[in-house]
Amino acid sequence: MATKIVIVGGGAAGMSAAAKARRTDPTLDIVVYERSGYVSYGACGFPYAIKGEIARVEDVVVRTPAQFAKQGIQAHVGHEVLAVDAAAQTLRVRELASGTECAVAWDELVLTAGGAPSRPPLPGIDLPGVFVLRTVEDALAIRNWVEQQRPAHGVIIGGGYIGLEMAEALAAHGISLTLVERLPQVVASLDPEMAAHVQTELEQQGVTVRLEQAVEGLTGDDRVRAVLVGGATIPAAIVIMAVGIRPSATLAHAAGVALGPTGAIAVDDHQRTNVPHIWAAGDVAEAHHLVTGRPAWVPLGTTANKQGRVLGENLGGGDVRFGGIVGTVVVKVFDLEAASSGLSEGQAQTEGFAVQTVSATAGSRAHYMPGHQPIHVKLVYDATTRRLLGGQLVGREGVSKRIDTIAAALHARWTVDELAELDLSYAPPFSPVWDPILVAANLAKR
Amino acid sequence: MATKIVIVGGGAAGMSAAAKARRTDPTLDIVVYERSGYVSYGACGFPYAIKGEIARVEDVVVRTPAQFAKQGIQAHVGHEVLAVDAAAQTLRVRELASGTECAVAWDELVLTAGGAPSRPPLPGIDLPGVFVLRTVEDALAIRNWVEQQRPAHGVIIGGGYIGLEMAEALAAHGISLTLVERLPQVVASLDPEMAAHVQTELEQQGVTVRLEQAVEGLTGDDRVRAVLVGGATIPAAIVIMAVGIRPSATLAHAAGVALGPTGAIAVDDHQRTNVPHIWAAGDVAEAHHLVTGRPAWVPLGTTANKQGRVLGENLGGGDVRFGGIVGTVVVKVFDLEAASSGLSEGQAQTEGFAVQTVSATAGSRAHYMPGHQPIHVKLVYDATTRRLLGGQLVGREGVSKRIDTIAAALHARWTVDELAELDLSYAPPFSPVWDPILVAANLAKR
Repeated sequence: MATKIVIVGGGAAGMSAAAKARRTDPTLDIVVYERSGYVSYGACGFPYAIKGEIARVEDVVVRTPAQFAKQGIQAHVGHEVLAVDAAAQTLRVRELASGTECAVAWDELVLTAGGAPSRPPLPGIDLPGVFVLRTVEDALAIRNWVEQQRPAHGVIIGGGYIGLEMAEALAAHGISLTLVERLPQVVASLDPEMAAHVQTELEQQGVTVRLEQAVEGLTGDDRVRAVLVGGATIPAAIVIMAVGIRPSATLAHAAGVALGPTGAIAVDDHQRTNVPHIWAAGDVAEAHHLVTGRPAWVPLGTTANKQGRVLGENLGGGDVRFGGIVGTVVVKVFDLEAASSGLSEGQAQTEGFAVQTVSATAGSRAHYMPGHQPIHVKLVYDATTRRLLGGQLVGREGVSKRIDTIAAALHARWTVDELAELDLSYAPPFSPVWDPILVAANLAKR
Repeated sequence: MATKIVIVGGGAAGMSAAAKARRTDPTLDIVVYERSGYVSYGACGFPYAIKGEIARVEDVVVRTPAQFAKQGIQAHVGHEVLAVDAAAQTLRVRELASGTECAVAWDELVLTAGGAPSRPPLPGIDLPGVFVLRTVEDALAIRNWVEQQRPAHGVIIGGGYIGLEMAEALAAHGISLTLVERLPQVVASLDPEMAAHVQTELEQQGVTVRLEQAVEGLTGDDRVRAVLVGGATIPAAIVIMAVGIRPSATLAHAAGVALGPTGAIAVDDHQRTNVPHIWAAGDVAEAHHLVTGRPAWVPLGTTANKQGRVLGENLGGGDVRFGGIVGTVVVKVFDLEAASSGLSEGQAQTEGFAVQTVSATAGSRAHYMPGHQPIHVKLVYDATTRRLLGGQLVGREGVSKRIDTIAAALHARWTVDELAELDLSYAPPFSPVWDPILVAANLAKR
């Protein structure tokens, strides 16, 4: 009988694993259970679908269950896995529409349930008009609310990536926005002086930014009407809760699967958990961080896809490893691009490095080319070994892929001096003769 | 008495060396002789000045002799160095305006004369309206000709970077263009199938491309009127000769300075020549190529700046080395970006590698984002060691800085499999979840 693979969660990690396992071993019996109504979608596209830049929310769906069926992958949407019995190698699953429950046996179990948005127990959090953004259904609900209710005022709670992207998305609908953040800065992965550029952009685009303020509650009647923050009442006909996500690891934990120090599932470099025949990948799992040398939880679509692929190949009898992450992220905030890779100064200090930093501002193009924009660069390195620990870039163009040079340098474990030697591309429309990264690295050399 | 540094050539390499030497050792006596009327200019900006995108040609000048004088650097423009006596440590220099010649003693001599455009001895090559592009004076002359003569037709001879950039520049003035190239493709640093995208762009922009055709001569009267190519007479009221440059190493060679296999000055990693107290950098010199492990001559502004800086620091008593190049280039051709780093398939074969390649086309943004454009990627690697040898990218956006990831991979001497593991940035407006480079590298993995 064919080996039966059961995959819990049909997001990027789960469906990458399914597709790769299928290609690697055509004899496998592959079944996916997904709680929401969709599998295999580019969740990072939701803010642009809500903004209206993408015509329909469903356009971010890569493949449907019907398309997976043609590949011999059974993807069941609307199915929630309730419990896993690791010893018996079974699980209990409920079809949400009918309420039907049944037991399913598996030979290999893949945990790719992703993460769930935090919903702090605030008064009024369940009022209509208060949203989180994680699933296609969430995105559809927000877009419908925006189009049907035409809110004049909105509040975004949380200044992370989703919060920032949603600010751009809702502002495009003419919604007057307030962004509330508990920390003294937006984008926690950036150091404060770099995050300040992002805050300035938000404010220049008309978003009111309230830092170091906690939301006390939400008020309304048949819908949300206002958000209570620091004694003030901010009118809001739409509220986005974007205070972060947590790994959906409860089911795994109950089944005896070990979680790591981050609270996500601990995996080895083959995506195996501590329990034989149980695997994990994506936002529910940790990843080896190449800068700290320790497990980290940096839930990102790229890592989910890569880990899923590695997992799938190993399921199919392969022997491949996931090399690890350096934590490269980029976010578009209105007309600004903000990117980082590796550790911020603050993170590096927390990790116990002897931190040194260098900052520079240089042009995105040659100084004589019209349209050139400043790019702010910050490099973080170890004062003793001079090893590069991280980099941050903020600017109006040329940031998103420039950060990849920092990412490569972190993979290579280069010193900041080695970074300064790179033979980077130059043409006046694309870069000054000294690329901003080289300008910063050269300053560190002194 | 202060050590006297004489620098022959006030381009990027020479003035970088001067500025860095000055900062490193304030006691040095630093004199620069430059044949043209300008020092320290961004020659790569000329096509955009001719195009009219930059208001004035002189805007590409970074610093004037007066500004250098304030730093204690005497920069003499309009001065041609005629001969060097290495044993006596003197040289002969002529002030071009007056014809005055004099002997100058030096303690350390820096050769940074750059390169000179090839001017094949074609009939009619000296007709008014026939230009090369190298100096500020050349750029001014072309811009004046374009503005005053308003040529309806033009011919560009040579399909390298300058030829392509000049096609964009002249087309912006409404000039109907023919580009003539001796080789079977444009952009010799790209493999034919990648160069074909560039050719298509030229043709779509209305440029007639004639490959594998040699120019037989130019005809005219008081000015150029036509170019004779393959038996055809192509009308041309302006002709750009862009058939490449050669290192201006004659003076050095005559003085006993050894040239390398490329015909440019051989230098060590401190920018020293074989003659004590004589140094060289920039387009007149070779550089260590990190992929082949041998000297190469890739005349580029970035390398000139870096070598000049290393040279200057060593002149001032420092002990620094130039790490070498991987030959990273990018060119804008109308709305297309074409970039390469390392060796092309053809070059790798010539170098004797067991060459394998992989090609892929992937989006510049997430597939669901409006405005996404295909990026064509080609990776060249060694079939035995799987070491990456080079990469090429062509597309309408997102190419220019993406090539830097390839450059970093070449510096790191990664295999194509290691390249595939990179944690590159992703956000829907900037990249698909699998960056085009990763898509190609993953194909190589199979």
